[in-house]
Amino acid sequence: MRYFLLLCLLGRTCPFLLPPHLNPPNHILPKSTLLPIQNRPLFSSTKLDPVVNDPNPDPQTPPPTGEIRIGVVGCGRIGLVHLSAISKAPGVRCVICSNPTVSKAEAAAKQFGVERFTSKAEDVINAADVDAVWICSPSQYHADQIKACAKVGKDIFCEKPIATDLPETVEAINACDEAGVKLMIGLQRRFDPNFLRIKDAILSKEVGDSIVVKLCSRDPSPPPIEYVKGGGGIFADMAVHDLDMSRFLVGEDPIEILAIGSCHIDKAIESLPGPEAYDTASCLVRYPDGVTAHIDVCRQSSYGYDQRAEVLGTKGMIATENMYPNTAKIWTPNFTGNADMPYDFFLERYNEAYIKETVAFCEALVKDEPAPCTGKDGLVALIMSMAAGISAKENRWVAFSEVVETVCCTSPTSCFLVEGSAIFPDGFKPKKNPAELLIAANPPKQSIWERMFSGSS
Amino acid sequence: MRYFLLLCLLGRTCPFLLPPHLNPPNHILPKSTLLPIQNRPLFSSTKLDPVVNDPNPDPQTPPPTGEIRIGVVGCGRIGLVHLSAISKAPGVRCVICSNPTVSKAEAAAKQFGVERFTSKAEDVINAADVDAVWICSPSQYHADQIKACAKVGKDIFCEKPIATDLPETVEAINACDEAGVKLMIGLQRRFDPNFLRIKDAILSKEVGDSIVVKLCSRDPSPPPIEYVKGGGGIFADMAVHDLDMSRFLVGEDPIEILAIGSCHIDKAIESLPGPEAYDTASCLVRYPDGVTAHIDVCRQSSYGYDQRAEVLGTKGMIATENMYPNTAKIWTPNFTGNADMPYDFFLERYNEAYIKETVAFCEALVKDEPAPCTGKDGLVALIMSMAAGISAKENRWVAFSEVVETVCCTSPTSCFLVEGSAIFPDGFKPKKNPAELLIAANPPKQSIWERMFSGSS
Amino acid sequence: MRYFLLLCLLGRTCPFLLPPHLNPPNHILPKSTLLPIQNRPLFSSTKLDPVVNDPNPDPQTPPPTGEIRIGVVGCGRIGLVHLSAISKAPGVRCVICSNPTVSKAEAAAKQFGVERFTSKAEDVINAADVDAVWICSPSQYHADQIKACAKVGKDIFCEKPIATDLPETVEAINACDEAGVKLMIGLQRRFDPNFLRIKDAILSKEVGDSIVVKLCSRDPSPPPIEYVKGGGGIFADMAVHDLDMSRFLVGEDPIEILAIGSCHIDKAIESLPGPEAYDTASCLVRYPDGVTAHIDVCRQSSYGYDQRAEVLGTKGMIATENMYPNTAKIWTPNFTGNADMPYDFFLERYNEAYIKETVAFCEALVKDEPAPCTGKDGLVALIMSMAAGISAKENRWVAFSEVVETVCCTSPTSCFLVEGSAIFPDGFKPKKNPAELLIAANPPKQSIWERMFSGSS
Amino acid sequence: MRYFLLLCLLGRTCPFLLPPHLNPPNHILPKSTLLPIQNRPLFSSTKLDPVVNDPNPDPQTPPPTGEIRIGVVGCGRIGLVHLSAISKAPGVRCVICSNPTVSKAEAAAKQFGVERFTSKAEDVINAADVDAVWICSPSQYHADQIKACAKVGKDIFCEKPIATDLPETVEAINACDEAGVKLMIGLQRRFDPNFLRIKDAILSKEVGDSIVVKLCSRDPSPPPIEYVKGGGGIFADMAVHDLDMSRFLVGEDPIEILAIGSCHIDKAIESLPGPEAYDTASCLVRYPDGVTAHIDVCRQSSYGYDQRAEVLGTKGMIATENMYPNTAKIWTPNFTGNADMPYDFFLERYNEAYIKETVAFCEALVKDEPAPCTGKDGLVALIMSMAAGISAKENRWVAFSEVVETVCCTSPTSCFLVEGSAIFPDGFKPKKNPAELLIAANPPKQSIWERMFSGSS
Repeated sequence: MRYFLLLCLLGRTCPFLLPPHLNPPNHILPKSTLLPIQNRPLFSSTKLDPVVNDPNPDPQTPPPTGEIRIGVVGCGRIGLVHLSAISKAPGVRCVICSNPTVSKAEAAAKQFGVERFTSKAEDVINAADVDAVWICSPSQYHADQIKACAKVGKDIFCEKPIATDLPETVEAINACDEAGVKLMIGLQRRFDPNFLRIKDAILSKEVGDSIVVKLCSRDPSPPPIEYVKGGGGIFADMAVHDLDMSRFLVGEDPIEILAIGSCHIDKAIESLPGPEAYDTASCLVRYPDGVTAHIDVCRQSSYGYDQRAEVLGTKGMIATENMYPNTAKIWTPNFTGNADMPYDFFLERYNEAYIKETVAFCEALVKDEPAPCTGKDGLVALIMSMAAGISAKENRWVAFSEVVETVCCTSPTSCFLVEGSAIFPDGFKPKKNPAELLIAANPPKQSIWERMFSGSS
Repeated sequence: MRYFLLLCLLGRTCPFLLPPHLNPPNHILPKSTLLPIQNRPLFSSTKLDPVVNDPNPDPQTPPPTGEIRIGVVGCGRIGLVHLSAISKAPGVRCVICSNPTVSKAEAAAKQFGVERFTSKAEDVINAADVDAVWICSPSQYHADQIKACAKVGKDIFCEKPIATDLPETVEAINACDEAGVKLMIGLQRRFDPNFLRIKDAILSKEVGDSIVVKLCSRDPSPPPIEYVKGGGGIFADMAVHDLDMSRFLVGEDPIEILAIGSCHIDKAIESLPGPEAYDTASCLVRYPDGVTAHIDVCRQSSYGYDQRAEVLGTKGMIATENMYPNTAKIWTPNFTGNADMPYDFFLERYNEAYIKETVAFCEALVKDEPAPCTGKDGLVALIMSMAAGISAKENRWVAFSEVVETVCCTSPTSCFLVEGSAIFPDGFKPKKNPAELLIAANPPKQSIWERMFSGSS
Repeated sequence: MRYFLLLCLLGRTCPFLLPPHLNPPNHILPKSTLLPIQNRPLFSSTKLDPVVNDPNPDPQTPPPTGEIRIGVVGCGRIGLVHLSAISKAPGVRCVICSNPTVSKAEAAAKQFGVERFTSKAEDVINAADVDAVWICSPSQYHADQIKACAKVGKDIFCEKPIATDLPETVEAINACDEAGVKLMIGLQRRFDPNFLRIKDAILSKEVGDSIVVKLCSRDPSPPPIEYVKGGGGIFADMAVHDLDMSRFLVGEDPIEILAIGSCHIDKAIESLPGPEAYDTASCLVRYPDGVTAHIDVCRQSSYGYDQRAEVLGTKGMIATENMYPNTAKIWTPNFTGNADMPYDFFLERYNEAYIKETVAFCEALVKDEPAPCTGKDGLVALIMSMAAGISAKENRWVAFSEVVETVCCTSPTSCFLVEGSAIFPDGFKPKKNPAELLIAANPPKQSIWERMFSGSS
Repeated sequence: MRYFLLLCLLGRTCPFLLPPHLNPPNHILPKSTLLPIQNRPLFSSTKLDPVVNDPNPDPQTPPPTGEIRIGVVGCGRIGLVHLSAISKAPGVRCVICSNPTVSKAEAAAKQFGVERFTSKAEDVINAADVDAVWICSPSQYHADQIKACAKVGKDIFCEKPIATDLPETVEAINACDEAGVKLMIGLQRRFDPNFLRIKDAILSKEVGDSIVVKLCSRDPSPPPIEYVKGGGGIFADMAVHDLDMSRFLVGEDPIEILAIGSCHIDKAIESLPGPEAYDTASCLVRYPDGVTAHIDVCRQSSYGYDQRAEVLGTKGMIATENMYPNTAKIWTPNFTGNADMPYDFFLERYNEAYIKETVAFCEALVKDEPAPCTGKDGLVALIMSMAAGISAKENRWVAFSEVVETVCCTSPTSCFLVEGSAIFPDGFKPKKNPAELLIAANPPKQSIWERMFSGSS
């Protein structure tokens, strides 16, 4: 027990001060013990920071029956997309929004009829009349804000990623599971009508059983080297969407991964460590029943954002084409083809998907159903992207359990964290006995990030 | 009488009580004499009918600076589309909506955060805090509601058509012109991104000067005979959109029209009079500079709603394809092609266009600019569809002045109505001296509708 | 001579001065009386002009059993296309070819293994070992060469048109009918796999009963004014293929036509008479059962040769796209579309069709079956193009009988020619009594060509 | 020296009885020592087998100046395709063809105007008037027939593969190089207009420098198990075309390969050894400069033969679509898409490519230029497919030198064969000293085929 307290003081994973044997491995409370959102006792005693334009409403005033009240953290580009979506979803209402630059929050509040705005995320998270929080802040704040929401019993929508680090990701998910709050991760491509059409075809066996899944993602142009640096590399910041999409389409957890990376566009990044040195990458992912996913990504397509999928099944093929802003085609003396270029980038291309994912989670809140894209989905996508990095570096097939073993069993805490967690799929859990791993890790072996980023790529 | 003269001198609505020589031909007041919407003196003494859920707000409370307050008449399918669009447009707010079945108005108000609702259109039109009215009621009410709005100085958005009859259409437009209110007609295809892309290409001479414009419209399946009966026939209820689109694309007023109709799908309608007997029709429209428009329409496409355009210019061609709900394509042992059928019908197909037209008019209101699709546009489209009916019946080219001559000079009032109006394009005005036409019309000659609908087609 | 006049009055064409008992009324010999080609008595006593490279073979040498021996007149571009096709068709062999510039004939003979070549068409037509003649000479020689072939009992393939003039066309067809020889007209589009696919769909009712047929033809750029001048205008030299195609697809003879023409590209031709002044034209053709054909043609597409068709039926639509040399598509920063431009012009675009039409006629010869595209087809296409010219000039619907009345009844001979001929479809024969027409034509009324070409268009 | 003689007696590769140091590594005679084909001393004393329909022509009769005389071995489907192509190529003439079932040879000779036919391949190979031989016989005869041709100085076109075995392949190529005859391998896809368009784009840098090459090949349905059994598996009998195409497009020799296979369609083959057990496979091929090729193949597409390519470059993308027999599209109540299914299989799909490859080699013969697709190309493709088999079995990246080391250095002869040969690209030659390999191979290590086919896959 002292051991755990110490860990807590050291700032690491003391899952709610319970000794491990009292801490249910699943971390998910039985469904029946959950109260419907509208009846949940809110943290009424919370001392709120002053909200800029309005005192907190009288907590005695009950919300309209069944209405879900939402708070939005972050009013940048993506925050506005979600605010707009929330304004269209039935049965929900955004009551407060925040942004460090408070004028952005104010403008957003005005545009979407939000009652209150503030500069502080805490005001949103702790507002007595907020049932669910949309986390649209920069990635580095996600994990802490998730945990803060979980602590006060708020359901959470969080933009991808949950955290930039595996243990933090596990902690955040565990926090939600223990608090019995819903955690929805914004992997918005799952809500794109084009990819969804393929998913439907697979579910209904329209093309039979899947044989090969092919995904292609290309950004219009590479980000500046400052963005690439420290971003975790092409698998973490770009291919992660395709890795998740392959799992979403196949409908099974993957077995192993083979990746390869190269640098073609911006030679400046070639000296960065690990997968940050790549602007182009390919993956093969092996799924159960001999299903293979092909993924190719590139940071530059020169002709605009490009997102396509193809599935060959035993009875046919289904594929989506890239998207254009209209159906116009043109014929001139020099070329004949699309009158306009494809959509520029993800905000335009996935505009409908962003709306649909928000609406889907609002519906899940209203009907008290599970989130349509969970913390586990975010976790698995992260592990897949990490394994891809190892594969590209070591030029070999990599099993996902390797990632978990390496990351989580370099210290006793992390190791227990994993051992007690139900969120890892089969094949992702460490294959070795944690005790052995711990011995092996003494002196601790190189962490996965160290391995991915050491030496020349 | 002096009162009216005074009003007239002040620039206000003295319609039809003036001898033609006192009635300024343009009927449009010089721009500079118009007050910005927000400062216009509203009819503050109007006694309002009781509004169901809320007394009229205190007229002393000024609206937020610059905000345009909207009232919506009619909360059926199309009313909801516009309410949704208004909720997204910046600088405007819907403050009241009406529907004869008041529960529909209530539901709409709740969904879109509208403050008040009512069962009566008058409540909306006369509300002191309403600056502009959206008329989304059935067609037969349009003309009267437009005139009621004009009378109280409200700007108007009206779903197509303005009226079902030519003199009523002219009267309604004149009423707006005299009152100096904006009148926007909902010819929504002009705001469809696909057709707009073609318009842009024409404006920027991307394919050179236009030579041929080809338009194709097909409904998924014919309406029931009850709907067709009395609807004015295929040119008035269907091809009118294409006739307007040809004029919108060419950017000039048409010269003459040749039409042909036939019945292939539902033989039950073949015995209906005039163009109501057709479920298929073709038009050639002659435009200035040798530009020809080809139009073919059919009440059944069997494969879903189909809307396409093609323009050949001196430097190339631009064309739009029909729209599908996603980009997915499928390959099976029996066929390879689109994974899904085209959009069902106009509400889905033109969803974006309905939003854009409302947003465009809201912008015009906020900036006090002219309506992007005017009453004149609606009038010309109506005349074109009438001329097509005569052509199909009489199997010959028809000039548009024939329609105006026939309709408006059968009585002195109608004849003056036209003679004094500036809204008719060149080539649409009667070629003969009205006085002669009046003599010829004594006994009145067959009206255009009688001609179109007499005998078997 | 009185005898012949009497015959004429009795409704019979008396060409070629044969006594009636030898001249069967239909001009087509009963099938059973036709001898198989290989056994037909050839004009063995014909005195042949000396052939350049080889004396005529000994007529005693019989041809290989069943083999059809072909002679080709004209070794220009199109002649070479047919020679190549003949070389691939089974059961046929080209034994002689001619060209006024004999070196072209020699080169062609060498390339395709043709035994003999000559400078004179007569050598080919009269060669004792030639069973069928391919007329690939300039249009002005067609009619005479057809008649020369018919005279010596040779089957004929003739490139479109049969003649440039209606009475000559009728005479040439009659000559073939009377001689009992096959006459195949090279309307090659009927053999294009794309148009054929549409024809198949119509025949098998794959899209139900036809409602609307839409055809679009565009040349890459206008011919020089010298070519246009005297060529008969855009309906005769360009739209004739589309007019024929509409009839081929619909499978019925047309009822009436409405045409419109304009000049956009080369203003130099605008002063030419009649339809020669147009570089752009549109036609509506009315077919039985309410079927309408839309045709639009233009002498310049700027993006290459363009040939498309679309048919709407009661159960669906079928359409062909323009053809490209490969399936490659390209995506660049400036455009995304086809990697290459469409085919340049008809020789490339219809290369396969030219081969297939020759092979089809070779098969018809080998199996002694009717020609798959007859003289009547060529005649009707010519009449349709003439009627389009009248319509465009007179701005009205034109019935096809008008063409025949005008052309054939300006003199007794022509009038009798038509009256006694079985080759005119219903609706194409003169509606008035020839006697009356003759009286009306005295003084002769303006001929159709005069009418089409008089005044400014 | 005795050593080599002994080897020869044992029936294995005694490379031309020269000790290695005397054997020029290149095996290609200096260009200047080659005589033009038409002047080459033919094996005039060869005693010919009696030819069925014609004695050998008098060797004194010289061929027409510059004409290349061709003999075709094998008149099956593919033989007929080449005969047809030869008949159209200028400057060449097929003078003799053979088929074991002589009636087939006779029919072919008749159809394509070939002078002589025979049942025996030797008659063709040894005919004094044959300059070049087309080998269209079953695969197992290829190597011997190539060597027989080389022996008598005939240029050779040989359908893929050269041999089914690596040493035999090397021997056959060496034989041609030593004899100074051209050897063209029928990798026909290199002549397909669609793939060629991509190659052109790469050569002209139309899409910049290549980054990723993606190839997809799918057969309409799997062959019977009897065909699969012993055929070498999916990489050798199917993916070999794509492996070659990736090298052709990239324009460099590959570095290493990663492959993966699975069985989805016909579970009966799952128990076959090695890559014969797969009906689906994926490859990644690493090329210089970070270029990656993705290949996915499947023995069943259910919707017909499917062959596509895509290349992303630094300046754009180019891709080819699958091919359909026409451009017709259809719209019905149940689907909208292509009116017909894609081409059935390779003979239809690559018909034009087969013609173009023959014409290209004929041109190379006439102009005495190098063959456009050489023995080395065939060899490298074979090695790539073998390496793919090892990779799929051993689940790892495989270098191509491994294949050569394993195959050629299991016996001294084979090892010398390779060491002395210039035909292996860099990276394909054994990396280890042959002497060491030989020692290691004693007892001989498992051959590559044994490795690929041992154990369960």
